[in-house]
Amino acid sequence: MSINMTAKHARWPKANDVIFGLAGQAAEAIKKYGKENVINSTIGALIDDKGDLIAMKTVYEQFKALPNAEIAAYSAIAGQPDFLEAVQTACFRDHRPDAYTRAVATPGGTGSIKHAVWNYTNPGDEVLTSDWYWSPYNTITEEVDRKITNYKLFNDKNEFNIESFKEKFNELIKKQKRLLTIINTPAHNPTGYSLSDEDWKQVLDIMKESAKDKDNRIIVFVDSAYIDFAGEGTERRKFFEQFSNLPENILIIVGFSMSKGYTMYGLRSGAAICISSKEEIAEEFFYACIHSGRANWSNGNRGAMATMTTIANDEKLLKAYEDEKLMYKTMLQNRAKAFVEAADKVGLELLPYRDGFFISIPCDNPMEACQKLVDQNVFVIPLKMGLRFAVCAVSEEKCKKAPALIKEALK
Amino acid sequence: MSINMTAKHARWPKANDVIFGLAGQAAEAIKKYGKENVINSTIGALIDDKGDLIAMKTVYEQFKALPNAEIAAYSAIAGQPDFLEAVQTACFRDHRPDAYTRAVATPGGTGSIKHAVWNYTNPGDEVLTSDWYWSPYNTITEEVDRKITNYKLFNDKNEFNIESFKEKFNELIKKQKRLLTIINTPAHNPTGYSLSDEDWKQVLDIMKESAKDKDNRIIVFVDSAYIDFAGEGTERRKFFEQFSNLPENILIIVGFSMSKGYTMYGLRSGAAICISSKEEIAEEFFYACIHSGRANWSNGNRGAMATMTTIANDEKLLKAYEDEKLMYKTMLQNRAKAFVEAADKVGLELLPYRDGFFISIPCDNPMEACQKLVDQNVFVIPLKMGLRFAVCAVSEEKCKKAPALIKEALK
Repeated sequence: MSINMTAKHARWPKANDVIFGLAGQAAEAIKKYGKENVINSTIGALIDDKGDLIAMKTVYEQFKALPNAEIAAYSAIAGQPDFLEAVQTACFRDHRPDAYTRAVATPGGTGSIKHAVWNYTNPGDEVLTSDWYWSPYNTITEEVDRKITNYKLFNDKNEFNIESFKEKFNELIKKQKRLLTIINTPAHNPTGYSLSDEDWKQVLDIMKESAKDKDNRIIVFVDSAYIDFAGEGTERRKFFEQFSNLPENILIIVGFSMSKGYTMYGLRSGAAICISSKEEIAEEFFYACIHSGRANWSNGNRGAMATMTTIANDEKLLKAYEDEKLMYKTMLQNRAKAFVEAADKVGLELLPYRDGFFISIPCDNPMEACQKLVDQNVFVIPLKMGLRFAVCAVSEEKCKKAPALIKEALK
Repeated sequence: MSINMTAKHARWPKANDVIFGLAGQAAEAIKKYGKENVINSTIGALIDDKGDLIAMKTVYEQFKALPNAEIAAYSAIAGQPDFLEAVQTACFRDHRPDAYTRAVATPGGTGSIKHAVWNYTNPGDEVLTSDWYWSPYNTITEEVDRKITNYKLFNDKNEFNIESFKEKFNELIKKQKRLLTIINTPAHNPTGYSLSDEDWKQVLDIMKESAKDKDNRIIVFVDSAYIDFAGEGTERRKFFEQFSNLPENILIIVGFSMSKGYTMYGLRSGAAICISSKEEIAEEFFYACIHSGRANWSNGNRGAMATMTTIANDEKLLKAYEDEKLMYKTMLQNRAKAFVEAADKVGLELLPYRDGFFISIPCDNPMEACQKLVDQNVFVIPLKMGLRFAVCAVSEEKCKKAPALIKEALK
């Protein structure tokens, strides 16, 4: 056995990437049995009915039409100024809160989570999120000696569990006086739940009550990665208005990703947008994040920013982009509807799905169920408390068939 | 005054970006007086004689020819496997060390520095680099509570100051038992110095002597950002061979950037490549870095990786790319030669330039000298101990004129 060269905090178990492994098995099954006989629900990206990754035409036409030098040049550390305007409009649309906001460009949504975790918590702190959650929250926090603590996302009636949230929130803020809460909504990964405006009101009431203690520091990170595939119009953005005129010791940070809404997964672009009732607090956010940006990845993908800005500032291009996105959103919603209806028909219990790429099926032995499904050429992702089915990656026709096969495997 | 919402470690002075400010002044001067009457040496990127950013045709033709889905898709966390092969070949060429190596993709060179600093040092540690150095080393280390300590890069004869290096290295390793040394070579930013093979031998001899203490952990980060613009053939890569068969407690990490060699500044792509005599230590590096990557920026720019791989794996494309790069390298070398000769003629003292984008002029009051030069429509970057002139950004003709103007300003 050789020595360790890494510092102690940098030693991690060699992780087997479960998703990567299952995706590989699915690819093999497709080769062996043919596409039509395999349901591959492992991929967290929009896939068309033929099984190919969707790259939006209206996005890539503009991207490839950029002058080479516009792609080649360094961006400003904070992101290009016109992008920082455009990204806020794309995020809030007609539901901009009455507050001071500042944005900084980040590599995808992940970079914005990193900013929130690093700059707004201390080593040893617990970060609050729901018990169903995107596992990289864990990687991001444990990397820097923070840890994830959970409240229960749903109560017995499968409603948002405000009691569990309140209990955990008050417990942690009392202990730490500083608390970062990550809320992944709308279109939560992995359940597809979206907090209702009433849910948000209750969450903010708890926080406002706590904010009366002026020593408390309450930071809410809204992970909006899937927001462009939620709801019909912009009604799933209405909750942003509730961030108007908050007490100064409540800071909102919205993580905006261009991965899904622009099918730019591999280009690594997004933003962290802060919302505060105090200009100085928004400024403080900005300078903390540009220091962190400089120190972690330097600057962002300039071509990705320029593409968004080009589209945002041209009415015709924006309309074409919105139309194309709507087509894919409708496709996604039809798939989800088919899955939920078929589940209902065979009595397969689902968590309450509202929007987005994924639906979760609670069960007792997810690994075992997953393995049984592999034998049926159905590939789903096993989570701690259930299975994740990716409607983003499976045709409507197969979404109709899958629930019966899953029900069978759970018997 | 409002409250602070950030955690204490995340509060930094609001930095005025000197380079950005000067670049703005230069742009204004160009508008007012015309391109031909302004020497703009503020930009750290290859600029052609007309003042336009160079984006290599052989690179962007391949980039834009990629299928949209190949740009849109997520890369593997570690980087695409074929890229991880190609980037090692591009880095080492015909001077690959006899050792175990592993690569991980990073956002530009900065991401690779972040990996080395985070995973191989402890909070409070001092990181060793020369007194002339790229200032973001400071940002990257102070962000995570490490700090930069300097040895003197040059002795009185303007040679590599091995005595100063030895003194500081031994002092720090004795104190910390773990020491990360950053060596930016070949084509050091900001001086243009390249360690000779003999310099490297002396550096490694000091480290090997220190490595006899089996409790010491010696990590060398080789920042090779400008390597593609150094030397004639591949002779400036010969030092890589000296990393063969090192003691197991000496680990080399090479930071490879695609920003300069592929004119992909804004695409944020590069790699960290480790070199060790022990396979387990290379593995440990790999798993530490993929955890950090996942936790900081998730994954890398897939299209940038695919472009490099496409070029690397096609003999004809590779030849065309190498030819185009050679053309720009020759342009750069002619500019630098013109500057050095003109400086010699007027008696302007320079630090020993060998390769790369920048030449440094030591002086006592850099800010004052910089301001005087602004009045002459000459824009250079003031450093702590002198001025940085960017031959990468200034035509040969102007490189001939600049030294006399600088000499005058230093009077």
